[in-house]
Amino acid sequence: MGSIERIEAVAQKIAGFRARGDDVVVVVSAMSGETNRLIELANDISGSPPPREMDVLVSTGEQVAIALLAMALEKISCPARSYTGAQVRILTDDSHTKARIEEIDVHRMQADLSLGRVIIVAGFQGVDADGNITTLGRGGSDTTAVALAAALQAEECQIYTDVDGVYTTDPRVVDNAQRLERITFEEMLEMASQGSKVLQIRAVEFAGKYKVPLRVLSSFEEGPGTLITLEEGEDMEKPVVSGIAFNRDEAKLTIQGIPDTPGVAYRILGPISEANIEVDVIVQNISEDGTTALTFTVHRDEMKKAEDVLAEIAGDLQASSVVTDAHIAKVSLVGVGMRSHAGVASQMFGTLARHNINIQMITTSEIKVTVIIEEKYLELAVRALHSSFDLDAPDSVEN
Amino acid sequence: MGSIERIEAVAQKIAGFRARGDDVVVVVSAMSGETNRLIELANDISGSPPPREMDVLVSTGEQVAIALLAMALEKISCPARSYTGAQVRILTDDSHTKARIEEIDVHRMQADLSLGRVIIVAGFQGVDADGNITTLGRGGSDTTAVALAAALQAEECQIYTDVDGVYTTDPRVVDNAQRLERITFEEMLEMASQGSKVLQIRAVEFAGKYKVPLRVLSSFEEGPGTLITLEEGEDMEKPVVSGIAFNRDEAKLTIQGIPDTPGVAYRILGPISEANIEVDVIVQNISEDGTTALTFTVHRDEMKKAEDVLAEIAGDLQASSVVTDAHIAKVSLVGVGMRSHAGVASQMFGTLARHNINIQMITTSEIKVTVIIEEKYLELAVRALHSSFDLDAPDSVEN
Repeated sequence: MGSIERIEAVAQKIAGFRARGDDVVVVVSAMSGETNRLIELANDISGSPPPREMDVLVSTGEQVAIALLAMALEKISCPARSYTGAQVRILTDDSHTKARIEEIDVHRMQADLSLGRVIIVAGFQGVDADGNITTLGRGGSDTTAVALAAALQAEECQIYTDVDGVYTTDPRVVDNAQRLERITFEEMLEMASQGSKVLQIRAVEFAGKYKVPLRVLSSFEEGPGTLITLEEGEDMEKPVVSGIAFNRDEAKLTIQGIPDTPGVAYRILGPISEANIEVDVIVQNISEDGTTALTFTVHRDEMKKAEDVLAEIAGDLQASSVVTDAHIAKVSLVGVGMRSHAGVASQMFGTLARHNINIQMITTSEIKVTVIIEEKYLELAVRALHSSFDLDAPDSVEN
Repeated sequence: MGSIERIEAVAQKIAGFRARGDDVVVVVSAMSGETNRLIELANDISGSPPPREMDVLVSTGEQVAIALLAMALEKISCPARSYTGAQVRILTDDSHTKARIEEIDVHRMQADLSLGRVIIVAGFQGVDADGNITTLGRGGSDTTAVALAAALQAEECQIYTDVDGVYTTDPRVVDNAQRLERITFEEMLEMASQGSKVLQIRAVEFAGKYKVPLRVLSSFEEGPGTLITLEEGEDMEKPVVSGIAFNRDEAKLTIQGIPDTPGVAYRILGPISEANIEVDVIVQNISEDGTTALTFTVHRDEMKKAEDVLAEIAGDLQASSVVTDAHIAKVSLVGVGMRSHAGVASQMFGTLARHNINIQMITTSEIKVTVIIEEKYLELAVRALHSSFDLDAPDSVEN
């Protein structure tokens, strides 16, 4: 929620649902800028504030928002009650700043719903078994919403965002990208992990696990949004590819001329993992001289750190060289339709070849094909693939 | 606590107590300006925000402060834990925005103290039996501190303020006012209710009731402050008068020519009370013609409202007139020494007479004599009485 005006608009929307006869439980995050303001206060005091106290601090952001929304609802004669995570009781483990929900007590909420009250719950926070305030990590409000929907067996969990749904790809790159009516949890997870920032991955995982239908909608305009469900939607002819995800946050590192012996991948990736660097795509090639090369990608911000780790290992392994490349991009085709359709990968490679785009790395999963290409070809590749897999909006020619 | 610098200074002070071997429980209020900022947010949304939600909102001010102070302590290697009112559990009744403390659970605090941790508690807040967040009303942090000291049987409860102690009178009016080494709860209560703003009245009441020695100190400079205790301090020659309190917040209303019959005071003050106007001093005189006049004082802001109420009553009672005066001041001599010393009142009246100050109303209690005078004589009266009752600092002549 951004401002007082936004809070009042949200209250109007909620009152509309109530007037329709729906029971409503609302999860809110902090007003925009508030969480950052609180984090700055902490940083002014300490370079490494204790996580327990960070949670006490930042959880106030949502607490302010729930009180204000409850006030806005009461003002328009819509009975409402705000609850902090501890009040609900959203029980979590004790991993401060990145806690996981273990159990939700629904009795108090159900009693309020039966009295006709709207329930406003602070997102992103809970309480551990000892009564300490915990937070689920940034963006955790989506997870709170899904968990509450599961616990209350809600008909639908609606997530209001700054976009009006999930698209076949980023409309900023492909003009005629289409909003998807529906998408499966699996596809959504692949889209999210490949760079589509619409929803938090953990929220989608949670929704899939507890079979909570999830709908992504715009906070600012009316519309059906995108429904994320378990089923593929039997009534419609499912396209082979549902969407194209991409990102340019990664960098590539290759260590060459290493012995092709068992355990060598572990000797390289073990120290990378110990340095808390997350690795995404990994490819190992065999060369003819009995040595091999291992290539992997990491977040671009961590390339230098990964390079330093590799430099040490390279000496031990008598590697011939370490090569890095920050100018790469990742493009993924995602779709449950791939399971039953052969040839998606080859159609993808053919499309890229026709545009003279070289493929540097390839990985595949049951519902995804991912390639790493030179960054400058990213937009071209996404547009060509979007068109090649019939994802362009039907009226795109007229537009 | 005002700013980050203040928080760090407070942390240093606390670490000093710990280094001395003291167990420390700290009660903090919100950073300066924060409570007002939150109240403004609420007012932007609603003219009459629900009290329950006001408490959810404003209690975040202290929650931010406890987290920051705990961080500042941990940073200087002083183990600390912050607790909200609900976490402690400070159980209150359910009167939102003006709740009263009913019970304090000390187990968690005692466990933390035995582990060598400093405990930081959010002042001004608690939780009702249903788990709703409550607040004690503005300035309630003093009350929280005293209540915790009583529950934990603390040796002393120190209240840090912007003054360095309790003075014989306001040093802004009398240059050579003296800081009192000690004062009794009764005297402090009379001083507070007569306009001395050093401490919240409820906090002093609480401290007296539970016999918690209370020390008022400056947050900004070193010094012993003023100790407020049950005993009068047998070792020292107790002066007859401990201090002089005054205020100019009141206005006087007189209704004249009313029948001198039983129940007439009730017929006048009943409607005043129903209009939620608080009355301070009340005096009734008998005149010779069988009618009487009733005079009372109210807060100056409420004079107009009280006048309107009286105007209605005046008709019913066939009163001859209603007279108001906003230019009055109240001056009180306070001291447990009065109990055993006759003549305090007559010395007071004599002093005022010598300065040609007319006394409009008089009330007395066992340890207090109060007069209402014309406002313009206030400073003169206070200085004359301060000198007459030997309260001037010994070195005042040299200064």
